[in-house]
Order: sequence, then C-alpha cells, then structure tokens
Amino acid sequence: MVHVGIVGASGYTGVELARLLAGHPEVRLTVATSRQYAGKALAEVFPNLRKRVDILCENLSVEELVHRADFFFTAVPHKTAMDIVPRLLASGKKVVDLSADYRLHDPAVYETWYQEHTSPELLDEAAYGLPELYRDRIATARLTANPGCYPTSVILALAPLLRKGLIDPATLIIDSKSGTSGAGRAANVGTLFCEVSDGFKPYKVGGTHRHIPEIEQELSVAAGEPITVTFTPHLLPISRGILSTIYASLTSEGKTADLQALYEQTYDNEPFVRVLPAGVPPATQHVRGSNCCDLSLQKDIRTGRVIVMSAIDNIVKGASGQAVQNMNLMNGYPETLGLMGAPFFP
Amino acid sequence: MVHVGIVGASGYTGVELARLLAGHPEVRLTVATSRQYAGKALAEVFPNLRKRVDILCENLSVEELVHRADFFFTAVPHKTAMDIVPRLLASGKKVVDLSADYRLHDPAVYETWYQEHTSPELLDEAAYGLPELYRDRIATARLTANPGCYPTSVILALAPLLRKGLIDPATLIIDSKSGTSGAGRAANVGTLFCEVSDGFKPYKVGGTHRHIPEIEQELSVAAGEPITVTFTPHLLPISRGILSTIYASLTSEGKTADLQALYEQTYDNEPFVRVLPAGVPPATQHVRGSNCCDLSLQKDIRTGRVIVMSAIDNIVKGASGQAVQNMNLMNGYPETLGLMGAPFFP
Amino acid sequence: MVHVGIVGASGYTGVELARLLAGHPEVRLTVATSRQYAGKALAEVFPNLRKRVDILCENLSVEELVHRADFFFTAVPHKTAMDIVPRLLASGKKVVDLSADYRLHDPAVYETWYQEHTSPELLDEAAYGLPELYRDRIATARLTANPGCYPTSVILALAPLLRKGLIDPATLIIDSKSGTSGAGRAANVGTLFCEVSDGFKPYKVGGTHRHIPEIEQELSVAAGEPITVTFTPHLLPISRGILSTIYASLTSEGKTADLQALYEQTYDNEPFVRVLPAGVPPATQHVRGSNCCDLSLQKDIRTGRVIVMSAIDNIVKGASGQAVQNMNLMNGYPETLGLMGAPFFP
Amino acid sequence: MVHVGIVGASGYTGVELARLLAGHPEVRLTVATSRQYAGKALAEVFPNLRKRVDILCENLSVEELVHRADFFFTAVPHKTAMDIVPRLLASGKKVVDLSADYRLHDPAVYETWYQEHTSPELLDEAAYGLPELYRDRIATARLTANPGCYPTSVILALAPLLRKGLIDPATLIIDSKSGTSGAGRAANVGTLFCEVSDGFKPYKVGGTHRHIPEIEQELSVAAGEPITVTFTPHLLPISRGILSTIYASLTSEGKTADLQALYEQTYDNEPFVRVLPAGVPPATQHVRGSNCCDLSLQKDIRTGRVIVMSAIDNIVKGASGQAVQNMNLMNGYPETLGLMGAPFFP
Repeated sequence: MVHVGIVGASGYTGVELARLLAGHPEVRLTVATSRQYAGKALAEVFPNLRKRVDILCENLSVEELVHRADFFFTAVPHKTAMDIVPRLLASGKKVVDLSADYRLHDPAVYETWYQEHTSPELLDEAAYGLPELYRDRIATARLTANPGCYPTSVILALAPLLRKGLIDPATLIIDSKSGTSGAGRAANVGTLFCEVSDGFKPYKVGGTHRHIPEIEQELSVAAGEPITVTFTPHLLPISRGILSTIYASLTSEGKTADLQALYEQTYDNEPFVRVLPAGVPPATQHVRGSNCCDLSLQKDIRTGRVIVMSAIDNIVKGASGQAVQNMNLMNGYPETLGLMGAPFFP
Repeated sequence: MVHVGIVGASGYTGVELARLLAGHPEVRLTVATSRQYAGKALAEVFPNLRKRVDILCENLSVEELVHRADFFFTAVPHKTAMDIVPRLLASGKKVVDLSADYRLHDPAVYETWYQEHTSPELLDEAAYGLPELYRDRIATARLTANPGCYPTSVILALAPLLRKGLIDPATLIIDSKSGTSGAGRAANVGTLFCEVSDGFKPYKVGGTHRHIPEIEQELSVAAGEPITVTFTPHLLPISRGILSTIYASLTSEGKTADLQALYEQTYDNEPFVRVLPAGVPPATQHVRGSNCCDLSLQKDIRTGRVIVMSAIDNIVKGASGQAVQNMNLMNGYPETLGLMGAPFFP
Repeated sequence: MVHVGIVGASGYTGVELARLLAGHPEVRLTVATSRQYAGKALAEVFPNLRKRVDILCENLSVEELVHRADFFFTAVPHKTAMDIVPRLLASGKKVVDLSADYRLHDPAVYETWYQEHTSPELLDEAAYGLPELYRDRIATARLTANPGCYPTSVILALAPLLRKGLIDPATLIIDSKSGTSGAGRAANVGTLFCEVSDGFKPYKVGGTHRHIPEIEQELSVAAGEPITVTFTPHLLPISRGILSTIYASLTSEGKTADLQALYEQTYDNEPFVRVLPAGVPPATQHVRGSNCCDLSLQKDIRTGRVIVMSAIDNIVKGASGQAVQNMNLMNGYPETLGLMGAPFFP
Repeated sequence: MVHVGIVGASGYTGVELARLLAGHPEVRLTVATSRQYAGKALAEVFPNLRKRVDILCENLSVEELVHRADFFFTAVPHKTAMDIVPRLLASGKKVVDLSADYRLHDPAVYETWYQEHTSPELLDEAAYGLPELYRDRIATARLTANPGCYPTSVILALAPLLRKGLIDPATLIIDSKSGTSGAGRAANVGTLFCEVSDGFKPYKVGGTHRHIPEIEQELSVAAGEPITVTFTPHLLPISRGILSTIYASLTSEGKTADLQALYEQTYDNEPFVRVLPAGVPPATQHVRGSNCCDLSLQKDIRTGRVIVMSAIDNIVKGASGQAVQNMNLMNGYPETLGLMGAPFFP
C-alpha cells in the first residue's frame, strides 16, 4: 500500500485521478493540493466523489508535501511542474508528471515551444510514459512524463506503420478532435456551454499547437528519421474523448502489406489497445470512462493512402488513467491494476 | 463464483449489466441471450465491451438456459418476463427480474395498468428490490422484482418523510426528468438524436405513466395509508440520469422538524445513498455511471412546503446496478461488491 | 424607419436583438454599446452576425447615446438599468428595458428582492411588457419593462385559469427548466460545457429565485387576489428554451370546465401563442429561435389537478423577441413585424 | 407569386423547405406530399410549423401533382427522384431536385456509385445548383440538381485555389464532419440519441462515400484536370452543421501567393459566403439556421501545406436553403429573397 499525493487536484485530471485511485487496491490517497480550494473537501469541489473520496484540499509547500506521501502525481500547468518536480525527486519521491515539462528530450525544442527550462538535466532521465512503447524504461524510472492527450492518440495509431516503413512520413496529416474537458476547468467564455454546445470548430490551425513537437519526437523515434507533421486540433461538443483521423501515403511495401494483421500482432496482448475488426471505425463513446485506445485502419485504394483512426478518453488514457498505468509500472504492480473497468455506454 | 445469465442482453440495461458483472469478483457471465443478435459477440453489438466481455449472444429456450447458469437477470419487456421467470424458478434458479411483471403485489392493479397476469401466485413471493427498504426480505428471496427507474428515485426520496408523517400525502406532486436511455434501444423516430437533442418535453402527462401504481404502492406502505400522486415524466437530452423534484405540504410537525437531520440519520450508513449538505441540490452529472442516489431537501417557508430532490443514474441505480446489488444480497455477498465505483465527472 | 440603439450589446440578449433587428424592415440599428468590446465590430464578438450586422461596439455615456438613436433597448444588469433608463426617458427617448428594474410595481417588493430603487416614480408608469395581457397599455408607454423569461412562460400559461377561478391559487406549484443561455455570457465555472453537458439540476430551490415576486405580481392580478407560489428553476443542458410544468388543484368549477376550449378561445387570435391539441405536450425544440409560446394542459382526474405546460425560447419570447414585439407596439408598427419566422427544427 | 410544391415533405429537408418558404414573399406553398403522413397537417408532423405553415400532407401521383403547382422541390431519395422529375419537366414545370440523381454529368459515373440511370438524357441539361459557380446556368435551367451537403462545403472551399493552380490536386485530403440531421429522419438504431450523443466517429472510410464522385467532378472542373481525393466523413453529436477541414500541398506559386486576398476577392460580393479574417477558424455554431458558408484558410509553413476550412448548415446551404437560392435564380427573383436571416447564436 503506497501513500500517494495529487498535486493540483482541482482540475479535471485531478478529479479523475481521485476517482481512479479510489478504486485502486494498492494505493492510499493521503494528500491532495489545491490553492483555490484549500480547506474544502475535494468531494465538495467535485460532488461525484462524495462517500468515495474523503480528503481535504490543502495548500502545501513542497517541504510539507514530501512528508505526506511517497508517490506523487503532479497535475499542474507546465512551468509550475518544473518548480515542484525536481524537489520531489530530491526528497526521494517518485513522480508521474502530467504537464508538458518533461516530455521533450531536447531542451532547445522545449524552449522553442514553451519557455526556458529550469531543470534540463532531468529531460534525459524522464521516461516518456507511453507504456505500450516504453514499458521497461518506465518500470525503472523515478520520473515519468505522462504523454499529452493528442500525442497518445496519434503515437499508438502510427508507431507500427512507421517502424516498418509502410508509409511516407512526409505525407502525414493528423486531423484530431477533442472533447472540451481538454480545455480544463478555468472560467472562460470560450468553453461556456452555450459557446461549445451544438457546434464544432478547429483551433490552433497551421502548425501552432504545442503537442506538435511531442508528436514529432515520438514519431521520429518510430520512423528512425526526423518527421514533420501537419496537425489540426478541433473542439467537440462532448466532455470526454479524442478521435484522431490520420492520413499518409503508403509506400510500395505498404500498399501490399496486410496492415490489419500487423496491428493485431502488435497490439493483441496489450490490455488497453483494441484493434477493431476491419471496416469498423472507432468511436469516442465506446472508450468513454476507460483506459482503452481503440484503433482502426483502412486503405484508400483510389488514392494509395491509409487512414488510421484512434479513439481514447482524453482524461483517462489521455491523462489520468495512463498516469495510473505508469504508477503501476513504477511501483511493480500489475500494469492493469485499478484500470480494467470497461467503458460505459451509453 | 456463481454462474450468471442475462436474458435479453441487447438493450441498454443488458450492456450495463455486462459491464458491471465484468468487474464483479464473484460472478462469471456464462450466458447472454438475444434473439436479434444471436451468433454475434455481445462485444460486437456493444463495442465498449471489447476485450472486457467475451461472450456470444444466443437465442435459447428456457430449457436450454437453465443448464447454463444458476442466477439470472431477466432484462426483457413485461409480459415476456412472465413467460420466462416462473420456469427459471421452477428449475431452482434465482432471478432478478428487471421488468414490471413482479413489482406490484396486487394482481388487479397490475391488470389495470398492464394486462392479464399469468403467474399472480408469484406476486406475493417476489421481493421488491429496493435494498435500502427491503434488504432482509431480498436476502432470502428466490425472485426479486427490480424497481422501476422513476420509482427508485421517488421512493428513496420520500420514505423518511412519509414514515414520520411529516408531509400531507394528498399534496404529493412528482415532477421527474429522465435521460433518453430510459426509452430503450429500439429504432424509433421519437428518440432519434435530432428529435431529442437541444430540446426538452413532458410525456404521458395526467396520471398515465405505468410507474405510477408502483410509486403509489411503495409510498402507501411508507405512509401506512393509500396514496395517490400526480406524476409527470419528462425527456432530457442526456443519455443517463433521472432527477425527480418532489413537492408536498408539510404537516405542522413537519414544519418544525429538522428534516436534514432526519435524512442524514436515515441514510448515513447506506453506501449508495448520499444526503447532500443543506442547500446543495443534486445533479445527474454527479451520479453518472454509479449506483448512487443523491438526495437533497429544502423547505419553502413562504408556502409551507418541502421540496425533495433526488438524482440517480437510471441504468445503474435505476436498473442494472440495483439488480447487481440485489444479486449480492440474494447470494450472501457483501452488498456493495462490484458496485463501489465512484461516479465519473465530467 | 426608426433609429434604434442597444445598450449592452455583448450578452446573449444583445446578439439576439441584433439578429432580430437585422431582419426588421422598419428599424435601423444605429448604436450598440459594450464597455468590454468597445472598438470591436459586434460581428467580431458574435461571428454569426458577419455580413448581416455592420456596427461597432462603443463605450458611450448616456449624454452621447441620446444623439444616436430614438428608441433604446437596455440589456444591462438590474441596477445599471436604473442608472440609464430615467436619463434616456428624460431626453425624450422610448425604452424597452430588459432588466428587472421596472417590472415590479411596488418599490417595497423590489427592495426586498433586489436593493434600493432609485427611480421608484417610474414604476407606476412603466408598462409590463407582456403584449398578450397589456397590449393597449404598452402601445402608449414611454417605458416598457420587458418580462423575465420564467415569468413569461408562467403567466401566459396560467392567466386564463386564474381569471376564471378554475384553480385554487394556494396550490400552485411551478417546476421550470431553463436552457443555459439564461445564465448569461460571463465566464463562470458553473456554466462551462463540461459542468452542464450531459447533466441536469435544480438551483435556487425553496422560494429564493428573483423571478418569484414578478410571477406572483402578475398571477395575483389575474386572480384578483394575492398569490404565493412555489417555484423551482432547473438548468437544462441546452442553449435555448424554457419549459414550465405547472400544477394546481381544480376548483369544482374547474373540474367540469372545458379547459381546452377556454385556452383556444383565449389565444387563437394571438400570433405568438399556440395552444396545442389535447394530449400533445409542448417541447422546447419546437419553439427554438422563434417568438412562440406553446401551451398545453391536461387534467389529472385521479388527483383533481390540472397540469399546464408551456414552452418558449428564453432569449426570444423570453427576452429579445418580446422586446421587439413591445417596440412594435410602442412605435405603432404591426405587432408581428420582423417576428414571424417559424421555429427551426431540428 | 409562384405556386410551389414539395415532393417528399416529411424529412428534415422537407420541414426546412417549408420553414424557409413560409418566410418567402414571392411563393405560396400549395402542395406537400408524404406517403407516410398523408392526411395529416404538416404542422402536426413538425409542430414547429404550427400557425406558420398551413398545409396537409398528401399522397399524390405525378399526374395529380402537376395541377397543383408550377415549381417543385423534389426531396425524395435518389432513384425515386428519377421516377418523378422527368414527368414534372414534361408537364412544363421547373424543378430543383435535392437528390443525387442529376448531379453527375457522366451516367457511367452515376451507375458506378448508384444504379442504372433511367433518364440520362437530362444529365447534360441539369444545372449543377451551386450558384456561386453556376449562377447564369441555373438562371435559365428547367432542372437544377441541388448539390450534396458535403460537396457544397468542399467545392466552395477549394475552387479559388484550384482555378489558380495554387495547390497540388494529387495531395487533396478532405476530413469532413457532419451533424446528424444529414442521416435523415428514418427510425434507425445508429442515429438514436443515446448512440450519437456525447460521441464522435468516422464512417464510410476509405473512398466509399457517394459524395466523392460529385466532389471530384466539380473539383476537376475547377482545376481543369481529373482529380481524385481522399474523403472521410464523420458523425458529430449536433443536429445541424458540416465542417470540412481540407489539406493540400501548396505549389511553389501557392507558397508565395496571398491566399487571404484571393479568397476575399473571390467571395466578397457573395451574400452567402463569408471569408473570415486571417487566423479566425469557422464554427458550425456561427452559421446555424442560415444559408451562409464561412471560409477560412491557413498556411502551415512548416510543411508547405494549406488548410482550408469551411462551415455550413447542412440543411440550409447544404440542402433546403441552397434549393431556395436556386429557385430564386430560376424564377428571376433576387437571389437572396427569403434567405438573408442571420445565423442564430447561441
């Protein structure tokens, strides 16, 4: 039984971590921080947690925090994470960081897309927390950088094709659609119900979304060469879910390959990746509330392209669920512990 | 480990039963029937179940069924249930019936609202499956009649007031609002997305909904006198959730009573009933996906009335979750087994 | 062609006024104020207005305003309206005020529910802007107090019954459900998409909503005696629409009366009130985007009550559409001018 | 004042035609057919039309129809349209056909994607009803083939780039997302509220959707060479709206061209096409209920591509509104008559 803390418990990833940890047999949530709600029960902030999660929000310094738990989830904005994570590690704690601060290996890339990095020495050490790709590395890490939601949906979808050279990386186009929980819980006119409901729109078009360098980093690893992608995110009028529709031209080898078989071989033993039967596209409503990533792919013989589609719940496999999966690995627990709940539908 | 069957697995209560049973440590789902989808994997009908529920839909006679499981959930329409349940019992099986066929004790009332009853002798025997009221009775039953979704939300909300005589039963008005999953999964113009979405309306107004006799039966038991209520259901543009807003005039005793304390005393030890702090109304989004029933009540001193509000997930506490709760009792398992998952929000 | 100004154009009632006025043949929108968006085109704030409404938001004093238009809609919060309206009137302008400041005739009532009233002398003069009840009065008014959205839905529903003494006013219970646009466009966690979507909840329960005195004032006029009601508002996961379900006990005369005929006689010549055929309940999705109020009523013979149901679009008949209807009357235009668009469905 | 008939009035395009025609000053709707609802008022089928559209649904032969109106909208499925349209034309009527039957000029292409064509001689004569491209042709046509919803959103978005050779047509990838009204009003499990709501998914992936040949026909005309595209439709949990996100590699000329200026020049005089300011993406909620098509485009300098985005209301500009626009042209009315209503938001 490990004592676990959530730093930044008052956002949507915080409440989802609390929900998942409440059903986890090997952890005890011993501390949850929130500056805004300090002194309030977390279940008062998120009434879904009543009678299930009994913890107060606190406003604590790192010095106080380290006495309260042995394993930490940092669910705070980038930059704030950089302030906290090194000190938690220095106190001998293990950390899954849900921010972007330790996802990019190259500090120069980080500084191009974000700002100065104050603990670049940790970038090499941090494991990239996509267990399906880096399981062994994560198992021995002190610090795991939990992947972004969009990158999770994209990397799992493309890794098999890129590793085998079956698509031309220069042709990659990623059209992603995310539920509104991805925008967080801050008061904001743009994410009011009346602005989002019964509507749909792209945003950060033209190569400007900060998940791009993360996607490119990992796709480049899979391909063994540097990759630049076109990536367009969109805002869906749903709370949870990301669906990515990805296009690439098949290489001559790709045109003849049995891609369905390749994906089934790659992922059949993965508990959280489900390769759908040929011709069945994924749907966000079929992964809702679960740590699953559903994948489907289809050749377009008229144009020589392949369309790869993936669906995840952005706050489970795209954030808090994957974070728990990483914690399981880092603590030597079975990877699926507390995470095998089926998606709920409808 | 009990072998369990779902008769009628292809509706929304069926898929939810399968989801809940997949996470239950003491049962094994060994048979699932569906005439329409016989031969298909249940996970093909409901892709959320892939890699979590591995069972084929079958079209079986009762004679075949009884060799395949020891405990049955019958999730078929009323009248069909009457055909099946007596034969399952006759083969020594235990049954939780999710239809209306065994909820009413008085066959005459059943026949007024439905049609002829072909096994009236079972009406007395069947336990009314609201564990918070009939826990002991259910524990020894062969047959439990799982309550209707609206009645569950209403009875839990009113029982404490009626038992103590704190409201005038003749003034009871129940205004209930249900998510669309309550209308089932049949193809139907009236429940198409475009008809329901971004809209709201009442239906079966004026004392015609078939849940009325069930509500009146149980409220009459609580009050110790016959009660007739006004009940208006409405259709919400959400999938899951019922919220009931209930009005009654306080008796002179009721006007001075500490109702908040009464509800807290009544329900504090109940794992699935959550009495909210004074002034906090319930919300369907805070019970979603869980077996919880959230209750709140508020006096209106200007008019001498009390407003009692309850929220449940209509396919969990209002159907499949309560059915599993009843199964737990009937099998001697801890009542909460497989059901303690917190609601998910957002 | 009258020159018209909108004071407070950046809320949802403002954009709807601009949309309706753009299609009105006898008005020209000459000024629109917004402190927050001063200098921006209104169509930049609300992109639906592009190529249809060509006006800049301005931050103007009342002294400047009066030179820019002859008729004003004040769509600002209560209290702010009191600061502006008397000065507009003093400059010889006509005003439809969409705030609550001039709806209540009795300053003491206003001060109980709001705060001190700084122009109580106007309360008697202001017409209550429900044209179906006060058409003649409005036609000669300088100042019309545009009704609240909930009161509009309630008063039209109940006036015929109360005037004829067919229900017992002491038994009135009003259960209302509103779309989220009623909460306005301010940044607010409680009305974020993820908080409202796929959910439903009551708020301001127990006689505390500020529309209560307005409802009671007008129902009392209809009944000819003081009325106190129980009123519970709820928040619907839709943008537009209010549905009120209203309960009352029938008097002995009411029990035998032909209520359907009464409503048809009362409203058949009203262009914006539609009495639905017996047994057909109203639905918000059937009035969406229009100035219609749909009414339906049903006796519950089991309990001796009547259930009256009404549906409006809260930002049209409940706000901006009714404001234009009032403007038409005040300017001697045909009452329906610019307002006869059918609701859009789906 | 022309007498107009709707053949097939009981679908979503039918009700929208009726709504738009009710507000059109130069037409009178004299006949509306529906086999299913014959004898019922159209306003009984679609209660939004009450007190606005007063017409009965009838089940009429073509022989009867031609005596009832001079201009017809055929809003029936493909193949059924082929049975009716030639006979309407033979009786001297003008027709806007909303089916796919007369959109493709090449009967062989039609027969590849649909079935045998029984009036191929009309294919050359039929005008392709996209007024922004074929205004003059439509004005003199007896028969106009109203474009598909997806093609409308795509062709307006791409024509300027293709005509100038600024993109490489071989690289075109079209990722489109449609509201559920596009699936029609037939009872169908797949479009039930509970299946669509709070979800998102692709369908007909890999070059199989029947709008592909129509898109390719018109893009090929614009480019002056045959074009084959990758097209993926998706189902949005909204009623109305299509958003298309379109990707192509810029030619060297395209990389340096001022695309924003090109689009503004092309469309600034178009009343229904709105080119958004640079950096502002379109949103379906900002065209809802209107005949507008909003366009935005953005270069991705990292990859040398352009992303073009378009938003329409699929049942207005994508169907019934465009049909009225075509009727206006065919009858010599101002093109915008009855269509200038601003989109409603929220």
